Amino acid sequence: MNWLDEVKWDQDGLVPAIAQDAETGRVLMVAWMNRESLALTADTKIAHYWSRSRSRLWKKGEESGHLQAVKELRLDCDGDVVVMQIEQQGGIACHTGRESCFYRRFEDGEWVVVDEVLKDPKSIYAHGHGH
Amino acid sequence: MNWLDEVKWDQDGLVPAIAQDAETGRVLMVAWMNRESLALTADTKIAHYWSRSRSRLWKKGEESGHLQAVKELRLDCDGDVVVMQIEQQGGIACHTGRESCFYRRFEDGEWVVVDEVLKDPKSIYAHGHGH
Repeated sequence: MNWLDEVKWDQDGLVPAIAQDAETGRVLMVAWMNRESLALTADTKIAHYWSRSRSRLWKKGEESGHLQAVKELRLDCDGDVVVMQIEQQGGIACHTGRESCFYRRFEDGEWVVVDEVLKDPKSIYAHGHGH
Repeated sequence: MNWLDEVKWDQDGLVPAIAQDAETGRVLMVAWMNRESLALTADTKIAHYWSRSRSRLWKKGEESGHLQAVKELRLDCDGDVVVMQIEQQGGIACHTGRESCFYRRFEDGEWVVVDEVLKDPKSIYAHGHGH
């Protein structure tokens, strides 16, 4: 059986993929992959996702230069989630200019921003908002 | 605004929740939460999910005793993924009896089982397969 057939794609043909910093273990982001993007990720060892908002293949960092070098790929017991150990180029995974997309912490009934912006998104993305 | 309204629930009213070991940083499992399970998780500091296969609220470890004590809850920039820092009771998060559900690693075109079973699932679940 092809390894891609062992993945349980959802009704849209996607699985969530977690990008975890290979050194620190921090979860940097979660995005979606289709069959093509997972195959490309495995082949090139550079993270590729499927952008649901733009309905297209998305090589992370294609605009910002913040590529993700993939050191390890794992699949869970149900075959419906992927975890990657990555090296984050530029140290910024989030389109807000932060290291991680998970910069809001639950405190006393509120989501509180607890991580700083490392780089102004305007200087990361030449052509407006991107990922 | 209520903190639960800041979460972008999908068309089924769910978000993926990542359980990460608070000490080691290992991603132990990913499951789904609805509004009620996220509220309960925040209130009790014990992880509660929504079981899609059984269509019911699922307190992780309710059968196995492998509860998850939640130390921190974070939300991502898009508001559609939750990451929890947890302490895994019994050291086993996976229904296969392994520490983590992510026990298969991609190697040369195959998913290879690389983590050992710590406890026979038959001795974890009295009444057949559970989580």
